[in-house]
Amino acid sequence: MMTTNPFEQPESEDGDHLREECAIFGIYGTHDAAAHTALGLHALQHRGQEASGIVAYDGRRFSAFRGLGHVSEIFSSPSTMAGLAGYAAIGHNRYATTGETLLRNVQPLFADFEFGGLAIGHNGNLTNALKLRRQLVKRGCLFQSTTDTETIIHLIATSQGASVLDRLIDALRQVEGAYSLVALTDRALIGVRDPNGVRPLVLGKLGEAHILASETCAFDIIGAEFVRDIEPGEIVVLNEDGVTSHRPFPASRKRFCVFEYIYFARPDSNVEGHSVYEARKKIGMELARESHVDADVIVPVPDSGVPAAIGYAAESGLPFELGIIRNHYVGRTFIQPTDQIRHYDVKRKHNANRMQIEGKRVVLVDDSIVRGTTSKKIVEMVRNAGATEVHMRIASPPTTNACFYGVDTPQKEKLLAHNYDVEGMAKVIGVDSLAFISIDGLYRAMDLPARDNDAPQFCDACFTGEYPIGLTDFETDGDNPAQLSLLTEPAA
Amino acid sequence: MMTTNPFEQPESEDGDHLREECAIFGIYGTHDAAAHTALGLHALQHRGQEASGIVAYDGRRFSAFRGLGHVSEIFSSPSTMAGLAGYAAIGHNRYATTGETLLRNVQPLFADFEFGGLAIGHNGNLTNALKLRRQLVKRGCLFQSTTDTETIIHLIATSQGASVLDRLIDALRQVEGAYSLVALTDRALIGVRDPNGVRPLVLGKLGEAHILASETCAFDIIGAEFVRDIEPGEIVVLNEDGVTSHRPFPASRKRFCVFEYIYFARPDSNVEGHSVYEARKKIGMELARESHVDADVIVPVPDSGVPAAIGYAAESGLPFELGIIRNHYVGRTFIQPTDQIRHYDVKRKHNANRMQIEGKRVVLVDDSIVRGTTSKKIVEMVRNAGATEVHMRIASPPTTNACFYGVDTPQKEKLLAHNYDVEGMAKVIGVDSLAFISIDGLYRAMDLPARDNDAPQFCDACFTGEYPIGLTDFETDGDNPAQLSLLTEPAA
Amino acid sequence: MMTTNPFEQPESEDGDHLREECAIFGIYGTHDAAAHTALGLHALQHRGQEASGIVAYDGRRFSAFRGLGHVSEIFSSPSTMAGLAGYAAIGHNRYATTGETLLRNVQPLFADFEFGGLAIGHNGNLTNALKLRRQLVKRGCLFQSTTDTETIIHLIATSQGASVLDRLIDALRQVEGAYSLVALTDRALIGVRDPNGVRPLVLGKLGEAHILASETCAFDIIGAEFVRDIEPGEIVVLNEDGVTSHRPFPASRKRFCVFEYIYFARPDSNVEGHSVYEARKKIGMELARESHVDADVIVPVPDSGVPAAIGYAAESGLPFELGIIRNHYVGRTFIQPTDQIRHYDVKRKHNANRMQIEGKRVVLVDDSIVRGTTSKKIVEMVRNAGATEVHMRIASPPTTNACFYGVDTPQKEKLLAHNYDVEGMAKVIGVDSLAFISIDGLYRAMDLPARDNDAPQFCDACFTGEYPIGLTDFETDGDNPAQLSLLTEPAA
Amino acid sequence: MMTTNPFEQPESEDGDHLREECAIFGIYGTHDAAAHTALGLHALQHRGQEASGIVAYDGRRFSAFRGLGHVSEIFSSPSTMAGLAGYAAIGHNRYATTGETLLRNVQPLFADFEFGGLAIGHNGNLTNALKLRRQLVKRGCLFQSTTDTETIIHLIATSQGASVLDRLIDALRQVEGAYSLVALTDRALIGVRDPNGVRPLVLGKLGEAHILASETCAFDIIGAEFVRDIEPGEIVVLNEDGVTSHRPFPASRKRFCVFEYIYFARPDSNVEGHSVYEARKKIGMELARESHVDADVIVPVPDSGVPAAIGYAAESGLPFELGIIRNHYVGRTFIQPTDQIRHYDVKRKHNANRMQIEGKRVVLVDDSIVRGTTSKKIVEMVRNAGATEVHMRIASPPTTNACFYGVDTPQKEKLLAHNYDVEGMAKVIGVDSLAFISIDGLYRAMDLPARDNDAPQFCDACFTGEYPIGLTDFETDGDNPAQLSLLTEPAA
Repeated sequence: MMTTNPFEQPESEDGDHLREECAIFGIYGTHDAAAHTALGLHALQHRGQEASGIVAYDGRRFSAFRGLGHVSEIFSSPSTMAGLAGYAAIGHNRYATTGETLLRNVQPLFADFEFGGLAIGHNGNLTNALKLRRQLVKRGCLFQSTTDTETIIHLIATSQGASVLDRLIDALRQVEGAYSLVALTDRALIGVRDPNGVRPLVLGKLGEAHILASETCAFDIIGAEFVRDIEPGEIVVLNEDGVTSHRPFPASRKRFCVFEYIYFARPDSNVEGHSVYEARKKIGMELARESHVDADVIVPVPDSGVPAAIGYAAESGLPFELGIIRNHYVGRTFIQPTDQIRHYDVKRKHNANRMQIEGKRVVLVDDSIVRGTTSKKIVEMVRNAGATEVHMRIASPPTTNACFYGVDTPQKEKLLAHNYDVEGMAKVIGVDSLAFISIDGLYRAMDLPARDNDAPQFCDACFTGEYPIGLTDFETDGDNPAQLSLLTEPAA
Repeated sequence: MMTTNPFEQPESEDGDHLREECAIFGIYGTHDAAAHTALGLHALQHRGQEASGIVAYDGRRFSAFRGLGHVSEIFSSPSTMAGLAGYAAIGHNRYATTGETLLRNVQPLFADFEFGGLAIGHNGNLTNALKLRRQLVKRGCLFQSTTDTETIIHLIATSQGASVLDRLIDALRQVEGAYSLVALTDRALIGVRDPNGVRPLVLGKLGEAHILASETCAFDIIGAEFVRDIEPGEIVVLNEDGVTSHRPFPASRKRFCVFEYIYFARPDSNVEGHSVYEARKKIGMELARESHVDADVIVPVPDSGVPAAIGYAAESGLPFELGIIRNHYVGRTFIQPTDQIRHYDVKRKHNANRMQIEGKRVVLVDDSIVRGTTSKKIVEMVRNAGATEVHMRIASPPTTNACFYGVDTPQKEKLLAHNYDVEGMAKVIGVDSLAFISIDGLYRAMDLPARDNDAPQFCDACFTGEYPIGLTDFETDGDNPAQLSLLTEPAA
Repeated sequence: MMTTNPFEQPESEDGDHLREECAIFGIYGTHDAAAHTALGLHALQHRGQEASGIVAYDGRRFSAFRGLGHVSEIFSSPSTMAGLAGYAAIGHNRYATTGETLLRNVQPLFADFEFGGLAIGHNGNLTNALKLRRQLVKRGCLFQSTTDTETIIHLIATSQGASVLDRLIDALRQVEGAYSLVALTDRALIGVRDPNGVRPLVLGKLGEAHILASETCAFDIIGAEFVRDIEPGEIVVLNEDGVTSHRPFPASRKRFCVFEYIYFARPDSNVEGHSVYEARKKIGMELARESHVDADVIVPVPDSGVPAAIGYAAESGLPFELGIIRNHYVGRTFIQPTDQIRHYDVKRKHNANRMQIEGKRVVLVDDSIVRGTTSKKIVEMVRNAGATEVHMRIASPPTTNACFYGVDTPQKEKLLAHNYDVEGMAKVIGVDSLAFISIDGLYRAMDLPARDNDAPQFCDACFTGEYPIGLTDFETDGDNPAQLSLLTEPAA
Repeated sequence: MMTTNPFEQPESEDGDHLREECAIFGIYGTHDAAAHTALGLHALQHRGQEASGIVAYDGRRFSAFRGLGHVSEIFSSPSTMAGLAGYAAIGHNRYATTGETLLRNVQPLFADFEFGGLAIGHNGNLTNALKLRRQLVKRGCLFQSTTDTETIIHLIATSQGASVLDRLIDALRQVEGAYSLVALTDRALIGVRDPNGVRPLVLGKLGEAHILASETCAFDIIGAEFVRDIEPGEIVVLNEDGVTSHRPFPASRKRFCVFEYIYFARPDSNVEGHSVYEARKKIGMELARESHVDADVIVPVPDSGVPAAIGYAAESGLPFELGIIRNHYVGRTFIQPTDQIRHYDVKRKHNANRMQIEGKRVVLVDDSIVRGTTSKKIVEMVRNAGATEVHMRIASPPTTNACFYGVDTPQKEKLLAHNYDVEGMAKVIGVDSLAFISIDGLYRAMDLPARDNDAPQFCDACFTGEYPIGLTDFETDGDNPAQLSLLTEPAA
């Protein structure tokens, strides 16, 4: 008689969702720069939960601390913070696919060049990093990590540019992909957004201090003001002399990631001029208009489905109820199913609130469907609690394609929408009806008349397969480039 | 230039709330009893987050594991679970006041008696434990922990009763207080609820297995059925032969804790015949009727204020919006305020959703006010986000008195409602208006005509000061009895 | 192709030796009493390497710290020592057989009685502890540890004596066995030696402070002076008023353990009037006289055989050489033999110094033979290094019987000398000749004319089987009493 | 009343001695290559106690494990060893000066080149590493560690050589200094000794397997045979095809480090044709002849002074006694002196054996005097134990100069012999007489007629200041080059 362990299988904290891979933050010109950075990273924890790091500069020397886990754990010791003195700092939260979360991959990375120290953290993904890496290794460069960021650092190291900024521009001209990055030198905090502006980067102010962050919620936590979005292709240099803006790249069209509105960004952030919470409510309202169904109650799949469900309920006139309760104590170690103890992997996180469900026609509202595994279990749980009908409404179009721009997506073959049409998906998930918002409905919720198919206003490649930036590494070969070179831990 | 640490000050995970001190769970008659118990404790995590323990029995021997932290961490290792073999197990979650969370206080406690092993876990508080303890020490008993539970164990050890049950009854006849307890012997799982039934205890069934738990949500997670509430003063003995019920205590009036409905219990639990979520919604509706105010938006203080806010919004016809966003990554290590970085202790957990607040008259709905410190900060945050008016509505009467029946309350002198009338409280908190539900309104929300002042239907001592059970230890002396005797760790 | 782990098998640090089970130390009347105690325990580390503890008293409260491992590790943190304030302290080193080294068994044990706190540490073994324990459990006492010391504590708790001293005497009158103990109350440091004085206990002085220790080497490390041995059956009470001596037990004959001279005590200690180093040299000289052999070189088995080898070499006129070199970096984790990598378990600790061995007739000198396993491997190593003859000389008589007085010995059946005569042992070990010192030779080396067989001057039961103190527990039953009762960790 | 911590000050395990900085080991052609390597490193623990690492190769991939601490701890877990599969492995023990023992500096270092993986470990010190490093950084190389070894790796990475061997030779032609190194590729185990042969490297055989090690004691522990010393300037390539020898460097004169005989090597090793134990005994005999003194007893300072003391005693005819006893449980955390508890830093390790000292004229024999701090305390301890005269005899000439070839020496200004003549040193240490062996006496003990001052047979720079190899880095500048570049942990 074996005793099984109900918590042993690690699984994503976010369940069956796409995952943003990173958050960045930087501040220049305040006491306690590292403490402000830790708070900013904490507010951005939803963009990366596996590891975080901070590099600070105090006018004489750089100091750094990196760790695996959540921000509030990594930076909880007084001695850790005391070791991060200075008026300038940058920080990074990381999400990474299983098996690669080695401490040496945790950003910001730091290198001591001839011209002084430089720390870099980035959010996004380079699509020709592997090709560049191979060229650098041929020249005798030794790589320590498997991150794109290190490729940028070697490009800077081998550049013949006269200044740090020249070298950085020289390096970035060679890279292709989506990125927002923060860099810290002994003179300035630097921010860069790729020419298409796929990933967000915002500029803020706290007294005399300049701040860069992935989202505005990181300003709120420290009481800072939002100034403006960094423009696509813009490089900003921030120091005592103020803000200097550079635009060294050829003009490109902005293609901001629409999924930031659907799921990635925090509802209280303001992104590219839109309140995220409002955007989600409008998507819910649009969805209610597009795919009405007779029902008794609107139930969000907590927590990501809540704003869309509120919008849906308001538009449809049906009552909004917490028909599914989320357990707030779900940790990072998880429940393993056995024959006897079935389905408690979803029950560990969610429980049906029977009195709101029993005998009712339920509309479940969720933000997206990726593999569909969680949706199926939630539907079953709701049916077991006595729902007479279950209808699912999704606040995004069907996710049919992988993202190569800094979002962790399963391979195309594992996406439910890649394998089934909507009717097929409804059968797999077990609902009475299923509807997604249309692509044009999504654009309408963003206050646009419709998608401009000749020049789309957003990056929506995961729904349409239209990739705005080249995919060099993915087109040229398929071998796994992960472990090109390591001075430490070859196999650990 | 010192760098401060924003996460170093530990604080309650629940902020400024009363805290339930414990959860209990027991199961008899299934493979993997410990795994079921771990899941049950996980579902009951809200009733105690500082430590947990499980004792299992496999027909030959008892095994135990206890740890500090959350259930999913303590029981995440396969070897831990493998060491807890057996078809019967009991478990316990503990909340404890600062400084006392030593591992030796973590329940269930276990003792090996002449007649065999016995493990006990309890939820509640004995009000004459100290007096009993002094008598036992005089007899030569050596105490190992500072828990009430050990007092019960020594009473059993020194009882001359013929059977375990006789000894347990003998012991419980001497104690006074509020308690629900589970015990495990080599023959049976035993459940007891004190004669007033202050704390909850429910009976469930999973196939042939019998289950006891503090709340029904612990049944849902393992797919078990709710059978009935254990009656006040009832002792149930559960084993292969079924359920035997004993009522050895003189008849008393049921005085179930009304705060379980207001805050302690999970919204998806069914407690003494009421859905907790429904009860909270009805309280919100009652509150809307009692203290209407003209406003633009109903905003819950997340997450405990949400059901009452939904009820309030429905009754008042005003829109319900998530005007405050909760950060889900708040850990157990916390932010320390400095002069420069003010108010981020509340911002670490909550952020105003500016677009829903700015220029609006806001009604904030919360479950209770204890010290008022968090309320004050939240009101300030909402005002800073541009609210034109802020009205606070509280889903409980003013908390004027301490609880001695297993709930952690501050000393009376620290309760805001002890020191101020409602108008004074409104000034302290900084709201334009403040209202609490009336005591009769609360009873109406529980489907009663009103409070029966001669024989109140609930224990509501924290609102009324009417204590249904004697307070021997607290009346007789004031010295600190915490460290009577310890074989280990005298000062650690 | 499996990779084996050469260090995984834990084994005794002392190899194939009998092991003293404990050391005790106490000091009263100095600043930094705990620091002095830590140093004293460090000097006594050879008497117990598995765990240590200190209890200190500062005039107001007792504090304690216990840990597994070596003294210098357990007490290496400044905060640990800062937590052990006071002018009085007692400490204990523990050796324990595998599987029982739980922290709750680590001494000193502490209990808070009606009359105040009491900490106790002891060296030795009670031979009726189990019988007493059974009686106490029947009375309702709950045991926390599996140590004899706790039996004494419960006897004190249930005694009706008026003073601590009366209760201690009352308790000790009921026990049987060999023990030296130190106790600390809020008034005094107390030392006791059992009526036969089997285990050592010495009194020292450092300025105004009184000190008790197992051996004088603990005085040297803190610069204290040796005053005298505590007498068999004597209780000393040490405090500001000086030294008070009590003799409450009926007169008994002193039977000090002779093995303390052979192996247990440190060579630089002075024990019962003898220098341990001198005693060992004299045993070596006596051995040379009793069992001369023609040879080229005298080689000690390091380090315990060195003094006897020096004596043997001096008496025989043959050169003393370090023909075996000990590796000083042998840790507490060890080498596992595989087919391919043979014999390196002994080589991990010792290596033949080939140039001193090759082509020579070697006399190996060791202190004792227990199982003979190590001796066999060392002889083989010496032969492989080219010795033409190998003769073994042992500085004790054959070890034929187990010890029940606080020394860890294998069961009789595993003792080589129980199973073979000297000639048989020589064959097993593989030597050209083998000789042990005679029992009378041993007594002569202790400056006595011979053993007084009617009233032996020492306890030599391990050589003669004549046990001076009753063996109640071992005679009455054979069942394993180890886990009578545990409030914590029933199976961990 | 502060309680001080007697163990908190870390200090060298070897006290006041010069310290060898490294040990190396490699094996090719056996199952369990990593297990053999761990044992070899364990036998070489005396050459480096702060950190160790192993890199293994199994025909398909390289694996590595590195840790801080002793070999038997780092490689004690079965899973660690299971992760190091293969028939070939190299390993390294490291000693490093305080503050630099970061894991990223622990050897062997590994890099994945275009042509495949390469692991390197070395013993010694490059005297132009800093100059080379600066040139490499200018070219765009990013350094990860502060070790010389990484300089060699970057030289290999940027070499245009056709084969690994060509690249290695190319790299080594650019370096200057003393080194013995082992390297592992996917084809072979490679060993190199610098052209002057300053550090040792020996070749051994175990069945079909080839072995390289710093000393022969590493062969004994695994039962391997010694084949020969690697020649100065020789490169050996070991694999299935046997041993290939290369001599790509111009001819140089051998200048083996004479201090290896005096202190570094293990007494049971055979180094460059001499038994180390015999060499030390002969030094002791020569010393007795050069500086006889009337005395009663010869006492070694344990353990390093023992062989010389045995030789001294034999030559002088005076008795050899263990007048100082060493505590074998000295750990890596240590005793802090306070006013009250004086001198126990030395007493923690050593104690006078009073009976062998009291009333006697004592000759203390030690291997060397570095700062003189320990000597002074030992002399005081011996006087306090009652010695009537104390004479010190040292088995090396006065240490007047620092070593730059892989030995940790204090700055010249801290060497007692740099600041005082022998008479002055005697006063500082507090002895009645002090004598060192003469430089020619040392060469005589090595079986040479005398030192050849035109072409010295050994490197004896620490005694004579005659450095056989250029000191480029130390001559050209004085700034601290330790932290040139770090991708990780800039300040940790």
